[in-house]
Amino acid sequence: MSDIDMIRAARARIGDNLRRTPLLSAPALDDIAGRRVLLKAECLQITGSFKARGGWSAVSAIAPEIRARGVIAFSSGNHAQGVAHAAREHGVPAVILMPKDAPRAKIDGTRALGAEVVLFDREQDDRDAMGAELAQARGLTLIKPFDDALVIAGQGTLGLELAAQAASRGIAEAEVLVCCGGGGLTSGVALALEADAPGLRARSCEPEGFDDVARSLAAGEICRNDRLSGSICDAIVTPQPGNLTFPILKRLCGPGLVVTEDEVLRAMALAFRHLRVVIEPGGAVSLAAALFHPEALGSDTVIAVATGGNVDPALYARALETLPETMA
Amino acid sequence: MSDIDMIRAARARIGDNLRRTPLLSAPALDDIAGRRVLLKAECLQITGSFKARGGWSAVSAIAPEIRARGVIAFSSGNHAQGVAHAAREHGVPAVILMPKDAPRAKIDGTRALGAEVVLFDREQDDRDAMGAELAQARGLTLIKPFDDALVIAGQGTLGLELAAQAASRGIAEAEVLVCCGGGGLTSGVALALEADAPGLRARSCEPEGFDDVARSLAAGEICRNDRLSGSICDAIVTPQPGNLTFPILKRLCGPGLVVTEDEVLRAMALAFRHLRVVIEPGGAVSLAAALFHPEALGSDTVIAVATGGNVDPALYARALETLPETMA
Repeated sequence: MSDIDMIRAARARIGDNLRRTPLLSAPALDDIAGRRVLLKAECLQITGSFKARGGWSAVSAIAPEIRARGVIAFSSGNHAQGVAHAAREHGVPAVILMPKDAPRAKIDGTRALGAEVVLFDREQDDRDAMGAELAQARGLTLIKPFDDALVIAGQGTLGLELAAQAASRGIAEAEVLVCCGGGGLTSGVALALEADAPGLRARSCEPEGFDDVARSLAAGEICRNDRLSGSICDAIVTPQPGNLTFPILKRLCGPGLVVTEDEVLRAMALAFRHLRVVIEPGGAVSLAAALFHPEALGSDTVIAVATGGNVDPALYARALETLPETMA
Repeated sequence: MSDIDMIRAARARIGDNLRRTPLLSAPALDDIAGRRVLLKAECLQITGSFKARGGWSAVSAIAPEIRARGVIAFSSGNHAQGVAHAAREHGVPAVILMPKDAPRAKIDGTRALGAEVVLFDREQDDRDAMGAELAQARGLTLIKPFDDALVIAGQGTLGLELAAQAASRGIAEAEVLVCCGGGGLTSGVALALEADAPGLRARSCEPEGFDDVARSLAAGEICRNDRLSGSICDAIVTPQPGNLTFPILKRLCGPGLVVTEDEVLRAMALAFRHLRVVIEPGGAVSLAAALFHPEALGSDTVIAVATGGNVDPALYARALETLPETMA
């Protein structure tokens, strides 16, 4: 079970190996939201997402003689790069199983981090069997994307960082909006804030149609999504909250927030214009909630965590078209 | 005359009112450049450019009883917002003269910072006469965009920050590439590095066809640009280096670097993909030089200063089209 001590230990293992991402703001965003909005720009993290934290936490916690054999992960995106980065920096091999139809840039990006990418066919191959065979044959340790205490602890380091940043600005009360897939980041941040900034409360944010966490929180028990594809917010589409993460979410987070895809695209464009950071759709759900859902918010200050910035340029261009006018 | 003491004094006046912008890097960029590349992400500065530094330095140095009357500046872009921000935070009026055909978003952005925007017609109005009349009638203090010792000192605070960041990473030798218009930032940074990081050398970067500083450095005397419009790098197109800035550039900076517009667009796209920061064309000239001009560079480490991030979305979308493949 994850707890604050595990999060502090993860922070110590991470040390200066990852970035302390900035808290940004702009008067224009405050005007839109009708309250003070701060953006935790985690899209500027190494590998472009918070997944570098959980990856480092998990890889660094493996006993050296086991770790030397290598690690393995399944991912078509941010978790792949987080684990690949941590493995490379620890000087151990990483094997990442990616679907053949994963974005070329993400495959290249994972390879550029030194990982061995094994491609599988979503239709024909049994991904889990392939992974188990590889892990068995080579003695690789599996790093799960969210339902793992060490991964949750790593993501929780973002919460410790945020608690300190809020304190240095004199912010004692705020809602902290977190883009939520399986709940690894949201639950880790919630635990960290409970300990270090009890006036700050983590809340999950999801896109419409993939709101398993919001429905689970409302029902008091784990609910599944009907669909698993068809969202622009691919990075945070998961079947259901995790068995480790949900009890934490249930205890510490209020009702979940849900936004539309149009709101997500507009939030990406407003971050481009007013904060000059690139946010991917799955990472902009939180900012969309902060800007466009005043009815669901209760605090004078909201902190939106922009969880990632790895986005297809064509989709990004589409987001920019939502800006009311061009500057040319 | 600007000197290191003025820069340190500007830093003291700025205090915590502006951001300490991060130094970012990505293995993929090192691979392209064939050397270590660091990006000083000054596009994340308040108002989206380094101009906030010079604006603060100048406004904060005016005697309070004079400052209370207000300040005035001519600018269609980043300097306007830098001065407007500083004036607002000091609680004094700012009047910004902007051309009627300035980008709507920049006019709105300057107004959003509380400035009074006075529009003039480039063809029919005498901008200088209008400004002089307003300044006279209201007792406003003019803040020039670069050829002003207090403005140079403010821009130099970026150099102090960079010297400290380089030292903390053990970087003793590097070329520091600076996007250069009138030379306010380049000269300020050069002075700061001379004092605090003598192994780091500032070098000017400009777009092809608007390389007045490179030609002036080569000739040993101030040369003018033939054209003053028609560049995508509008933020750094000025008629010639300043009378205060050029002697500093001549003494401290090596030969100027010159890049093509295509290289600028590719640098913007690579920063999008690998660093997740938005850079405007005039702010990406330095990164373009770092990535695509190895023949002009002599150090194992280069630090490119991304000076601004206020860019037309349509132009940004055009830059993204230079990426070799889409991620969709």
